[in-house]
Amino acid sequence: MSLMKSWVVSANDATHPFPLNNLPYGVFSTETTEPRCGVAIGDMIFDVTAAEADGLIILSDEPLFDLPFWNPLMDEGPAVWAALRDRLITLLAEGFDQQHKVEALLVSQDGAELHMPFAVSEYTDFYAGRHHAQNVGTMFRGPENALPPNWLHIPIGYNGRASSVVVSGTDIRRPWGQLKSPDQDRPAFLPSRRFDIELEMGAIVGTPSDGPITVQEADDHIFGYVLLNDWSARDIQAWEYQPLGPFQSKATATSISPWIVTKAALEPFRCDTPTREVELLDHLKNCGPMLYDIDLAVTMAPEGKTATIITQTNYREMYYSAAQQLAHHTTSGCPMNTGDLLGSGTISGPTKPERGSLLELSWGGKEPLTLDTGETRSFIKDGDTLTLTGAAKGEGYTIGFGTCTGTILPAVEDPYKR
Amino acid sequence: MSLMKSWVVSANDATHPFPLNNLPYGVFSTETTEPRCGVAIGDMIFDVTAAEADGLIILSDEPLFDLPFWNPLMDEGPAVWAALRDRLITLLAEGFDQQHKVEALLVSQDGAELHMPFAVSEYTDFYAGRHHAQNVGTMFRGPENALPPNWLHIPIGYNGRASSVVVSGTDIRRPWGQLKSPDQDRPAFLPSRRFDIELEMGAIVGTPSDGPITVQEADDHIFGYVLLNDWSARDIQAWEYQPLGPFQSKATATSISPWIVTKAALEPFRCDTPTREVELLDHLKNCGPMLYDIDLAVTMAPEGKTATIITQTNYREMYYSAAQQLAHHTTSGCPMNTGDLLGSGTISGPTKPERGSLLELSWGGKEPLTLDTGETRSFIKDGDTLTLTGAAKGEGYTIGFGTCTGTILPAVEDPYKR
Repeated sequence: MSLMKSWVVSANDATHPFPLNNLPYGVFSTETTEPRCGVAIGDMIFDVTAAEADGLIILSDEPLFDLPFWNPLMDEGPAVWAALRDRLITLLAEGFDQQHKVEALLVSQDGAELHMPFAVSEYTDFYAGRHHAQNVGTMFRGPENALPPNWLHIPIGYNGRASSVVVSGTDIRRPWGQLKSPDQDRPAFLPSRRFDIELEMGAIVGTPSDGPITVQEADDHIFGYVLLNDWSARDIQAWEYQPLGPFQSKATATSISPWIVTKAALEPFRCDTPTREVELLDHLKNCGPMLYDIDLAVTMAPEGKTATIITQTNYREMYYSAAQQLAHHTTSGCPMNTGDLLGSGTISGPTKPERGSLLELSWGGKEPLTLDTGETRSFIKDGDTLTLTGAAKGEGYTIGFGTCTGTILPAVEDPYKR
Repeated sequence: MSLMKSWVVSANDATHPFPLNNLPYGVFSTETTEPRCGVAIGDMIFDVTAAEADGLIILSDEPLFDLPFWNPLMDEGPAVWAALRDRLITLLAEGFDQQHKVEALLVSQDGAELHMPFAVSEYTDFYAGRHHAQNVGTMFRGPENALPPNWLHIPIGYNGRASSVVVSGTDIRRPWGQLKSPDQDRPAFLPSRRFDIELEMGAIVGTPSDGPITVQEADDHIFGYVLLNDWSARDIQAWEYQPLGPFQSKATATSISPWIVTKAALEPFRCDTPTREVELLDHLKNCGPMLYDIDLAVTMAPEGKTATIITQTNYREMYYSAAQQLAHHTTSGCPMNTGDLLGSGTISGPTKPERGSLLELSWGGKEPLTLDTGETRSFIKDGDTLTLTGAAKGEGYTIGFGTCTGTILPAVEDPYKR
């Protein structure tokens, strides 16, 4: 695969995140339009809602793009997904003979506001990065109990809170919660002091299922991927998580990047999961490369200051693929729906600069990071902006995810004063 | 409060679950009608969708009952909830002068099929019964670690799976899952051998919130209550739950009773939570009686045989009220939505015949129950029907919940064969 050339000239740069090879799906509005479906091409957005209304895109008897989220298309399944991609490539490729018609439906990304690209049905977060699990387990339960006994046999996960998922750019308010220091007898209700990020990928379920599905089938059900930051209050988590798992510590917000990068765009970057340390049971066995080679990074910028890269890693570090996670999710017969979002779990590489959370980077606050500004951080300070980026690198082109960013606002003074 | 008399004669019996004092909300269909909103009165259902269409009920400029679930009314808030109840009491009370108009919109419960009464947005399950937590904790972690350190300070809970919530009467398929016996080195993928019930109440969020709310506000947001059976695969749970909590063990199905009993109907039965063992932090303190005196029971019937009452307890055994649970749920800023469902956690009383799960009743399988048929049970067998009932007993009247029932079908032979 090499760069596919578009008549939208900005899309033809080898380092641009949105070449014709990518075509990620988002929801945008402008000063003159309500939120609607669009596809990113170079520095522009192609208005898919308008293209359908104008008859430039016809996939179904019923309109698929008259709502401000991509769920109706997602629900249609792989054949219609492929038909849309084919049509978009035709319309936007160099040499298309009715370029003026498409050109009239392009808007600049600069003047557009981006919204949630899909309606989240339910949200599940996994814990499927080997290095992250080892690091966190060591801190929470000691090195001898770091990896729970089930970890190498199932991609363990917990149900998160769909209502808390927000699009990149949304400010995040530092939460209050019940905390208990080891040196105190009783908990206290206070703003979180150990507020953190988790660098993750989110997989989006396209088509529903109602009963156990295989890993291969699960891969077929996945529509696409986004960057995901699972904001985590470590002090709330430490107090609440036994024995029912994370709850309010993860319910303040989860940010996702605004562009859904489709499985089709990522196809050339498929790669295998790492070697199994123990053999998986048949229903979770790999049946092909189902991870992706995607470079990931996180930057931190104190208020009004320059950003520092605090971690760089790759999605291929995951021990389990999203397809394996989705297959596991259905084993009990759990119905899965269009718009379900699966967080990969924090992605950490084997070395310190590859760790995907501040908890790991500062080793529970014992080894604060020094930023390029000279300031130090163990966890997030008010005013800090955290930004996730991701890109798969092809020959002469890039499949970018855009950014997943959020700025931390101070906790409210009294959460019960209105 | 005493019995309010209706011209629907069957509603005036002191033991009937659906007198004029109750007026629970459901969704029903008949041979000739699609699913629609209705209210139970005696042995009949009053067709609220038709009543609105006919102008007998007018609460809003937009129709509230033209969809087959009660969410639009729930979203309207307490003033509209009260206006509907007032109007229904007027229409159905003895002496109403246009009885024939209402009579034309009554259908017999016998010929009606009941559906999910509301669309579940998200589902959270708590663990807030003192006796249940003590019993299960003793079995899973030993008597000295039975109650987790956080338990007396917060109503701990986990996010469940909304897609798995089904209405009473839906058959439940025994799930497969990963299990590991203590005497084996590796897990195996098998049908669950320890499939269980959990006797719970479900509280339904009526109006949304976006930030921390007080216990009193939380009570105001709750629309009503249902019976809830959180089907649980104990063997899947034991293997998966550390450290992220229950996941696939609770995702097969959760059954609810088909009639939403409103807070207004339960008002005379409010009662206090038990004495606190440690003082709660201010944001979770009780500010009035927010539990309810509701008698609860569970029966088990082997296939084709008579049912045995296997437990009898009361909702007032809960340590935390639904209002306290909802208040806790919002502490982190977690947005709550119309249609969110909160499971109380298993309700067990202090003595053995008051235990709300087979796990507790059979003490992890060590003390099997003997049914009236002479058969014994530690967990559920294929073909067994489990039925929850609930009723608040007033002077000369009863506020019934109907039943929450499900029959266990055998596991499929091969979950991956289609």
